[in-house]
Amino acid sequence: VVQASIITIGDELLIGQTVDTNSAFIAQELNKLGIWVKRRIAIGDKREDILDALGTESKECKIVIITGGLGPTADDITKPTLCEFFDAKLVVDEGALENVKYIFTRINRPLIERNLKQAEVPDKCIVLPNLRGTAPGMWFEKEGIVYASLPGVPHEMEGLLINSVLPKLKEHFQMPAIVHKTLFTAGKGESEIAELLVEFENNLPVHVKLAYLPSYGMVKLRLTGKGNEQHQLEEEISALANGLKSIVKEWLVAEEDISLQEALNKLLKQENKTLATAESCTGGFIAHLITSIPGSSAIFNGGVISYANEVKVSVLGVKRNTLEQFGAVSEQTVIEMAEGVTRQMNTTYGLATSGIMGPDGGTPEKPVGTVWIAVTNGSLTKTQKFQFRFDRKRNIQLTANAALNMMRLFILAGN
Amino acid sequence: VVQASIITIGDELLIGQTVDTNSAFIAQELNKLGIWVKRRIAIGDKREDILDALGTESKECKIVIITGGLGPTADDITKPTLCEFFDAKLVVDEGALENVKYIFTRINRPLIERNLKQAEVPDKCIVLPNLRGTAPGMWFEKEGIVYASLPGVPHEMEGLLINSVLPKLKEHFQMPAIVHKTLFTAGKGESEIAELLVEFENNLPVHVKLAYLPSYGMVKLRLTGKGNEQHQLEEEISALANGLKSIVKEWLVAEEDISLQEALNKLLKQENKTLATAESCTGGFIAHLITSIPGSSAIFNGGVISYANEVKVSVLGVKRNTLEQFGAVSEQTVIEMAEGVTRQMNTTYGLATSGIMGPDGGTPEKPVGTVWIAVTNGSLTKTQKFQFRFDRKRNIQLTANAALNMMRLFILAGN
Repeated sequence: VVQASIITIGDELLIGQTVDTNSAFIAQELNKLGIWVKRRIAIGDKREDILDALGTESKECKIVIITGGLGPTADDITKPTLCEFFDAKLVVDEGALENVKYIFTRINRPLIERNLKQAEVPDKCIVLPNLRGTAPGMWFEKEGIVYASLPGVPHEMEGLLINSVLPKLKEHFQMPAIVHKTLFTAGKGESEIAELLVEFENNLPVHVKLAYLPSYGMVKLRLTGKGNEQHQLEEEISALANGLKSIVKEWLVAEEDISLQEALNKLLKQENKTLATAESCTGGFIAHLITSIPGSSAIFNGGVISYANEVKVSVLGVKRNTLEQFGAVSEQTVIEMAEGVTRQMNTTYGLATSGIMGPDGGTPEKPVGTVWIAVTNGSLTKTQKFQFRFDRKRNIQLTANAALNMMRLFILAGN
Repeated sequence: VVQASIITIGDELLIGQTVDTNSAFIAQELNKLGIWVKRRIAIGDKREDILDALGTESKECKIVIITGGLGPTADDITKPTLCEFFDAKLVVDEGALENVKYIFTRINRPLIERNLKQAEVPDKCIVLPNLRGTAPGMWFEKEGIVYASLPGVPHEMEGLLINSVLPKLKEHFQMPAIVHKTLFTAGKGESEIAELLVEFENNLPVHVKLAYLPSYGMVKLRLTGKGNEQHQLEEEISALANGLKSIVKEWLVAEEDISLQEALNKLLKQENKTLATAESCTGGFIAHLITSIPGSSAIFNGGVISYANEVKVSVLGVKRNTLEQFGAVSEQTVIEMAEGVTRQMNTTYGLATSGIMGPDGGTPEKPVGTVWIAVTNGSLTKTQKFQFRFDRKRNIQLTANAALNMMRLFILAGN
């Protein structure tokens, strides 16, 4: 199997100010092609460390992907060091220079010296045009190893990887056939699912792997098969996925690698229905997830964040008496919130959340992590109580996913 | 200077399904102590690769922090491999076992065999108690190098690092004095700030570094000084920070490393004022940012997400005529949205956003990235138009930060 290494360059990674999302993106894309990422390594803007990493990684891998160190405020060390490693010298690339000038004209900002330097590249590289920014990508080949150096800005790196690097890798290497199949479950913990799948996993052929990808109340199960014959492998993985499906069917959300909000979006579009949200403890996070999907205006009319009790009464029509008798975090209150927002925004469905996210606000009867969720179609309303633990951020994410999943199940049940 | 290496273990990092946020957290905390992270490396659940990484990293660094590979569904390879590296054997730790049993009792779930195995540790380690989960941390010393092995769950890793690992590192190593000072700016680009700071940077003494930490319309500037005498270094960094402040004062948000929503939260609390939001294009993301801060209910009454025009009219009181004449993405509409939500939620201030986030919905007059933002105190209302580019996710984040910053400046101006 062809192995790759990812080198990310930048002091910002070593002082911990930047979370490295690029490596995950690159690894995902390489995996889809059947390239195994053996290691990922992050180093600072330092000549010796860059040379050292290029040396060690190219000994074990046929592909070395480098990101970062090419921005306008970078310490100008990556490109000279690449020149040293590849025995090259820096020259201005006319295409890249035109691109820098074009971008600055378009955004109507003055072009300064340090931006012009972005058009310089080592003369031993093939320039990969960057349609989304000023720093071009670079492709090198040396002693049977290929190297791609990409800017660190995620949006730019992603464009270059998809449009230039992956097609060139496909051309360059004889890849095995590779087939992935993801089953997406929600509402059951990782360990519990693992227990159910012990026998299934033991019976998997050696060329098929099962990966568990858990996050906030969801677990994605990904089967990956490698082989020589694409069509035969597809059939084999499809049969295995059916076996897996029959074990986890009770918690199955989708047979693809999407998010819970995408699954709900698809379901609402398919049924031509609309949704509104009334959020207390989740503070707008559910609406944010729903509206992060392009085209969500077709299914989402809007929402109310009723943080103050007064807003629950005046905007959502929750009865003052309900709040006084049962409190804001109660079954009765979320029912009135969900029904109120559905009425007010004139939607098919409504969902509501109220809970105590922490760190403060807990009581012995309603400790931190207590959450009530309601889903309604205006006439029938279902509720559920959850008891999470963890910190505020996790509680908000767990509540949002639980609510999205309840809504989905409510619609699927024919309500 | 004491150097550290961070090794993260897990196939999920190499298939790209997990974004490694742990390394950034660990790097930040080590840096605060004056420990320089030389490299970060991610490897799979494979004996040879783990041994190889432990070998190479311990050659160059005095501290090796290892995360991951300890969960209940891990392939049981990290602990046996640590045993091999440290010439140890696995034994049950009674304290860790009690902790596993206690956690399962508390969450009321059946304890299964694979959870019990989490209490096994190499007999050459000092056990670091995990108060947040089942897998204990482990501390090793060998030939002058210290190693800490921590679980990969961020919440658990963070607790162990802060409560156990950092105090032990401080005990173990003679650290230099280290002083950080962060100035937080918003509204000015990274390259433009860098241009203003050329002379300042050139005049910095060699033991002081300036780091640029940009994200979505904000740039944090962090001065880090290293020296022998804490008090003298503090005075020096303080004087340099004052010089820096005088150059960037126009865009200065805070003299500490906080978020824009924290800065706004503090300002509102200090003035004893309240806020409501009316979001169209940001879809609840601004409210989410505000409510992600514990205790935000003191300053935030709530918000309306008016995705559909009908909701702008019925809930926020935007005039139908305004929408027809100027469109949803217009100065007139955001003014009425901001004033409407302020009135309705009875707050001191209101803010509103309306724009086209993409990828669809743009027109020649209002291309993708067109955004109107309004801030109001109920009588005076200020507006600003922005033209972003990039993708949907970036546009939402840029709009949210621009709105939070406008609100902050509006309050600071005495409105």
